[in-house]
Amino acid sequence: MNAVDILGYSACAVTALTFLPQVLKTWKEKSARNVSLMMFIIAFINEIMWIAYGVLREDMVIIVTNVIMITMCSVMISLKLKYRNV
Amino acid sequence: MNAVDILGYSACAVTALTFLPQVLKTWKEKSARNVSLMMFIIAFINEIMWIAYGVLREDMVIIVTNVIMITMCSVMISLKLKYRNV
Repeated sequence: MNAVDILGYSACAVTALTFLPQVLKTWKEKSARNVSLMMFIIAFINEIMWIAYGVLREDMVIIVTNVIMITMCSVMISLKLKYRNV
Repeated sequence: MNAVDILGYSACAVTALTFLPQVLKTWKEKSARNVSLMMFIIAFINEIMWIAYGVLREDMVIIVTNVIMITMCSVMISLKLKYRNV
């Protein structure tokens, strides 16, 4: 594994955590009025595409990154639907 | 270019547009109180990592996808700072 590979894996690890601050903020504030539902629906569909791509490429880094993201995305969609007008 | 490549490019195209609905919603509503600034700061740093990775790998798809994302992310950070308490 060379330095470029390490950069790629690190970038994947950061990508996997992107939605976490929004999930925590919404969970804490119980409000999501200004958060775009469409952003998370697009992200959800996109993560299904990436997981399919990862499976076809047999690339565990892509699969794991996007399974984490789709999980957070699902939690965020649930929170948004729960607190959409709050 | 095979079917798996086409899936990968399509996934990149959708990824590039992920933040657009949030940018448009915030632009329209002039409010971003419930939007996590930290999410977009993490995404911004992450996109610098991905652009560096794309440059080192000489992968134009990764570069273009993340240049679009970092542009939207920068707009969203500006909007969030402008409307953070509205």
